[in-house]
Amino acid sequence: MPTNNQSKSQAIEAAQERIRSNRADLCDITSLANELLDRKSEALARAITLIESNNPSDRPQAHKLLSKLRDHGHPNSLRLGITGIPGVGKSTFIERFGLDLIDEGHRVAVLAVDPSSKRTGGSILGDKTRMEKLAVSDNAFIRPSPAADTLGGVARATMEAILLCEAAGYNIILVETVGVGQSETSVRDMVDVFCLLLIGGAGDEVQGIKRGIVEMADIVVVHKADGENVGECRDTASAYRNALHLFPETEGGNKVEVITASSMSGDGHDEFRSCVGRLLDIWSGNGFFESQRSLQRSERMASHAKDLLFENKINGIRSQEVWDRLSQSVESGEMSAFSAAWEWMNS
Amino acid sequence: MPTNNQSKSQAIEAAQERIRSNRADLCDITSLANELLDRKSEALARAITLIESNNPSDRPQAHKLLSKLRDHGHPNSLRLGITGIPGVGKSTFIERFGLDLIDEGHRVAVLAVDPSSKRTGGSILGDKTRMEKLAVSDNAFIRPSPAADTLGGVARATMEAILLCEAAGYNIILVETVGVGQSETSVRDMVDVFCLLLIGGAGDEVQGIKRGIVEMADIVVVHKADGENVGECRDTASAYRNALHLFPETEGGNKVEVITASSMSGDGHDEFRSCVGRLLDIWSGNGFFESQRSLQRSERMASHAKDLLFENKINGIRSQEVWDRLSQSVESGEMSAFSAAWEWMNS
Repeated sequence: MPTNNQSKSQAIEAAQERIRSNRADLCDITSLANELLDRKSEALARAITLIESNNPSDRPQAHKLLSKLRDHGHPNSLRLGITGIPGVGKSTFIERFGLDLIDEGHRVAVLAVDPSSKRTGGSILGDKTRMEKLAVSDNAFIRPSPAADTLGGVARATMEAILLCEAAGYNIILVETVGVGQSETSVRDMVDVFCLLLIGGAGDEVQGIKRGIVEMADIVVVHKADGENVGECRDTASAYRNALHLFPETEGGNKVEVITASSMSGDGHDEFRSCVGRLLDIWSGNGFFESQRSLQRSERMASHAKDLLFENKINGIRSQEVWDRLSQSVESGEMSAFSAAWEWMNS
Repeated sequence: MPTNNQSKSQAIEAAQERIRSNRADLCDITSLANELLDRKSEALARAITLIESNNPSDRPQAHKLLSKLRDHGHPNSLRLGITGIPGVGKSTFIERFGLDLIDEGHRVAVLAVDPSSKRTGGSILGDKTRMEKLAVSDNAFIRPSPAADTLGGVARATMEAILLCEAAGYNIILVETVGVGQSETSVRDMVDVFCLLLIGGAGDEVQGIKRGIVEMADIVVVHKADGENVGECRDTASAYRNALHLFPETEGGNKVEVITASSMSGDGHDEFRSCVGRLLDIWSGNGFFESQRSLQRSERMASHAKDLLFENKINGIRSQEVWDRLSQSVESGEMSAFSAAWEWMNS
């Protein structure tokens, strides 16, 4: 057993070490923030990795970084969500849309939220090769899907990744999702405009898409409208146009537009950009753009707070064990969800 | 200043008082639970009031009550959500549906989730008078809308209120919502079957309904199909039937059925009960009924846990003050939501 003096000097040493390492962290974070503000894409990539980290010990640094980037948001950014099942051509659509935007003088960041990529071992490394031309542009940044875990990790990180991209000078942020899971609702709540890509064809339009996503869309694109598919795609678009008046009106007071497009020929891309432009005109006119963003920010703060408290608690000694045990009783219907949550909180 | 002995004896007294009051609480809760299991509707009403309480000091008792009712769930209950804007005739629909079910030997509880009732000073006391015949039946229990506050209070309480109703011997639980707010998604996640009531008429069908709710529906009822409205309602129903094949398929493998009904004439009510029956047949066949319930239970445990941790923290000294201050910085876009949540958690 250490003597009183020994333990005291150990405590002092530990405290000094803590101060030293905190200082080192602060320096690192400061230079990371500066490099990011200097638009170095390697720094942006490292910053996103820090934000995405599932290690709770990285949270203080993430907080420091975000604090340093305060007041460095992009004043005129546009956040656009693009969803559709694998095979609908999201990458080719985003590549052409992105290159056109860059031609117009924009800087484009693409973030992928693909909760299935871990499970299927899919597109984690494939994103950049899927968008060859966009990937080599100096004015584009492409972030492969994070290999995030459960507990809403992907969605939590993506909102902050958007802020990092904006601080690094990207004014158009495209968030790509696969349209099959819970994360779409989260993505809807972090972008300004949400677009749904469909394939034309009898009954195949929404195969695989999760229910509820059609009603989230601000713009519907019937994609791959080229060659002999054009007719079928136009029919699909017109069927959706007819059906959409049966949907409740949008909160932003805009009409949901349905167009056909091909990213091979480029047909429909001008129209798509016009649709986005019209939407922004309406929303800046009636104030919906800013009110939606403000609501998104405060709702996200509450969800971050709850997630952080939960993470803090479940990483405590034996807390996960207790959670798993109680969780089983709840799943089997033995115990009420409230009682189990209460017991866990007080464990 | 008290002497050491004085403070000791005070501490002992306080501890004894605590034990006494705990015992008293336990007795009260035990008798409340027993009366509830004896199907005394007054006890059920008091139990729901306890569960709905926004006072954190009532949580331990709520937990005790739910623990005592463990293993007293109804083995064959059906939880049905009914949504539609004010004026669509939800009360008349529920009254006729409920009375028909009681005639068939069921016991029916009606819970109202109306987040607007506090704001508008609306239907808090009006629910029972809106369903006159159902209200006087011995086999019905009608719970007026709770005057709940923000922070998702209504939704949290409603799930537990369902369990209390089932413990009190009600096998059909109808949850009525107004279809305008966030609470619908929560209600969808606590019922087995979700029904949307619409009014027929050119373009008026979904006036006022929040976007996203149409896609949640398992059954769509075009209501008030009586007198000269019948034709228009049939047209509306047929338009929805045509449009619904453009929606993604349901997770339960069922077809969303669209019917017309009148609660004045009773037309369509037999068909509605058949629709529900068919749904349950499909879902018990493919296991979706049980898998949906099990998923709902575990998701609710996580959301309860997060809410409780949040409540626990925000009720701490000055925590609400800190939250409000940080929240303002987030809303104005000065601070990132993550940073604010992190600072609050560590405050």
